Amino acid sequence: MSPSTKSYVDQHRDRLLDELKQLLRIPSISAQPAHAADVSKAAHFVAAALTGAGMDHVEIIPTAGHPLVYADWLHKPGKPTVLCYGHYDVQPPDPLDEWLTPPFEPTVRNGNLYARGACDDKGQMYSQIKAIEALRAVNGTLPVNVKFLIEGEEETGGEAVAKYVAENPAKLKADVALVSDTELYAEGIPTLTIGLRGLIYTEIEARGPSRDLHSGQYGGAAPNAVFGLVELLSKMKDSNGHILIPGMYDDVKPPSPEEKHSWSILPFDEKEFLKTEVGSTRLTGEPGYSVFERLWARPTLEVHGIAGGYTAPGAKTVIPAKATAKVSMRMVPDQNPDKILAAFKTFVKNNTPAGIETEVRVLSASPSVSVTADHPAIHTAAKAFSEVLGRETVFIRIGGSIPIVGDFATHLGIPTVLMGFGLPDDGLHSPNEKYKISNYYTGIMTIAHFLETYGG
Amino acid sequence: MSPSTKSYVDQHRDRLLDELKQLLRIPSISAQPAHAADVSKAAHFVAAALTGAGMDHVEIIPTAGHPLVYADWLHKPGKPTVLCYGHYDVQPPDPLDEWLTPPFEPTVRNGNLYARGACDDKGQMYSQIKAIEALRAVNGTLPVNVKFLIEGEEETGGEAVAKYVAENPAKLKADVALVSDTELYAEGIPTLTIGLRGLIYTEIEARGPSRDLHSGQYGGAAPNAVFGLVELLSKMKDSNGHILIPGMYDDVKPPSPEEKHSWSILPFDEKEFLKTEVGSTRLTGEPGYSVFERLWARPTLEVHGIAGGYTAPGAKTVIPAKATAKVSMRMVPDQNPDKILAAFKTFVKNNTPAGIETEVRVLSASPSVSVTADHPAIHTAAKAFSEVLGRETVFIRIGGSIPIVGDFATHLGIPTVLMGFGLPDDGLHSPNEKYKISNYYTGIMTIAHFLETYGG
Repeated sequence: MSPSTKSYVDQHRDRLLDELKQLLRIPSISAQPAHAADVSKAAHFVAAALTGAGMDHVEIIPTAGHPLVYADWLHKPGKPTVLCYGHYDVQPPDPLDEWLTPPFEPTVRNGNLYARGACDDKGQMYSQIKAIEALRAVNGTLPVNVKFLIEGEEETGGEAVAKYVAENPAKLKADVALVSDTELYAEGIPTLTIGLRGLIYTEIEARGPSRDLHSGQYGGAAPNAVFGLVELLSKMKDSNGHILIPGMYDDVKPPSPEEKHSWSILPFDEKEFLKTEVGSTRLTGEPGYSVFERLWARPTLEVHGIAGGYTAPGAKTVIPAKATAKVSMRMVPDQNPDKILAAFKTFVKNNTPAGIETEVRVLSASPSVSVTADHPAIHTAAKAFSEVLGRETVFIRIGGSIPIVGDFATHLGIPTVLMGFGLPDDGLHSPNEKYKISNYYTGIMTIAHFLETYGG
Repeated sequence: MSPSTKSYVDQHRDRLLDELKQLLRIPSISAQPAHAADVSKAAHFVAAALTGAGMDHVEIIPTAGHPLVYADWLHKPGKPTVLCYGHYDVQPPDPLDEWLTPPFEPTVRNGNLYARGACDDKGQMYSQIKAIEALRAVNGTLPVNVKFLIEGEEETGGEAVAKYVAENPAKLKADVALVSDTELYAEGIPTLTIGLRGLIYTEIEARGPSRDLHSGQYGGAAPNAVFGLVELLSKMKDSNGHILIPGMYDDVKPPSPEEKHSWSILPFDEKEFLKTEVGSTRLTGEPGYSVFERLWARPTLEVHGIAGGYTAPGAKTVIPAKATAKVSMRMVPDQNPDKILAAFKTFVKNNTPAGIETEVRVLSASPSVSVTADHPAIHTAAKAFSEVLGRETVFIRIGGSIPIVGDFATHLGIPTVLMGFGLPDDGLHSPNEKYKISNYYTGIMTIAHFLETYGG
């Protein structure tokens, strides 16, 4: 890495942190309509930062949902073009009472910055913008051509950006995409992600009686919508987490022996993982598979939320008329979302208990993605990452889903460098989400060094 | 019935209805701490009505929970004493958006009075007070000695009244109790209830990870509190509603052949019951048992409400840390609540999935009750009821629970006349609860006639 980029970051440490805090104060919760104005405010903040960093043609693009922010700088003909992607929206912060400090009042404790979105993805996305700012400040130019596409709906399915990518391949044309929305395998280990699970997210509604009934008067003869939903959900997995939906595992491609081997030598302490990250009495999952296989290479089915009947304090003796659950499936290579979704709907239909009616609403569906470590940009990224952190880069998968990586592959025909700077205990989507402040600066320097290396 | 009591009611129809409406406007929801002042206001309203009806020694008795209202009139030495019981508290009104008119703005439509508590139990309880008022107005005296004990916690377990009855048997001494909190088998059919199911009401809390986790990062290896609770609940019953908790049916006493016969000849149209009352696609329940047996003579297990994880609009990919469900069991003769509760707790412990911790909180527990049709007061009540409605009185059970009936039997050694005036479609505990206005007047006249007959 060029010493001057490092010294630029060192000189501007306080301002770089203060700017990120300003962005984190905006509660840009894309899932909640009440926060639409905040989401828009965050888009404008990002656009201003891109202009400030020296990007040209900064645009705020209205969509059917939340706006996209686009920018480019294309003054290096003959050099490759990098498409930087991130998102400025965040997950809802609840349960609020578990936050030690308010989710939208960024607070520094023990070298970490605590706030909703600190790591996912405002902090990482902002590293990309600040890397551009640093390169331009130090060199007066950029080593490659750069485009930015920043969205505000990543946490709710990203429909607008998917549509935009599909409809604007010429405008977005690039050699490689750069996404910073992942994590280091562990502190200090340069890490590139080369596989992501896909995601189908649904809502199931179960209906029983036409109104809530008195359980004394009708209990024993009337169907109960909550219990009906419970019965249905319980049939979806066995007690080991093995999914019972017919066909679920038909197309699952096991990881290669090389990949399995590389996972087996990663530093991993299952007891520590259980204690400091999961915090339950034990881990669960399919027997015969390592934790990495269960997290990265096996499909899952999870119930994210359930609600029905009387849930306020005290007792109410009703037979509930209605209940809903949010249910997702994570998919691995080579599962097809359409096929899985069809199997899921058929399963729900066939297993809906007598007297109950169910409806499945699909909130989003995206396939798994894998990229190859052989691509020159991935190679260069691995080298640059190693040089900044001083040890060999590891290649891992992650269990989560970044649908845009699939969109870039499908519509632009380009691979994605998944270069992220979070840590496993950053608490993404949880109360007390944090971002290690030193990793914020490392991110800026690493991205800048990757672009310099890739351009050189 | 004395023609003068009937004409008193006829003359005062509008005022009698207006007074009840005033009581119904008070949102005395005992389950919700925010309504404590309203509950107290309802107690004062009832106390004033008892004074107005000519009762002596009207007292508002503070308790650890909501107040009791006591009153007596003991000027007929040598005549029996009747202890009138009712409750002035109501169920929560939610779901609010399903009410056609606001739950606490009583509204008349098609001869019915719509409001939360119209039937359960303000309307019926008020009939008792107005019967006393009518008798005193017409005769200048009462035919029997009368005591009133009206509570404000019936919908939340009735702890205060149970304690008061246990501690004050001398004060409450009577020959029979009169409870008006049940219904006519059908419009125009005089009905006395001689069996009630008991109720154990619990809350189960399930905990998995120490915080909500990102389902992409941890899905496949971390336990999910919602799914753990779903698994546990699903094991409690089979798909026919047969309870799978060991020992649940050990002490269940089947109804006598005579009782079964009397149920078999009650007018009952299963299709109509399904359509107009339950409103689901079909009835459910244990094969081999009639609907009456399932509702009156078989134990049940119901989930009244469930909550956990993300339930707001949109998608949030969490593995929830916590989930809760409200679960009750209805008991029939001769099931013992202590034994059933112990079996339930053992079952929860033995069936809690790996990685999950559960806790059972007991909100209330009361046994089933059966009274004998041979008691003189029940006989007299049946005769008086027949005379007012002009057809033979039927004896039924109900599936609900009125714990006070057990307390009266245990601590005062007296049976209870369960003389109620609701209808099966009154929507107790549901949106759009109603009370048929003509049954309000019938209630006043029938109670007055019963007291006259019992005193003569």
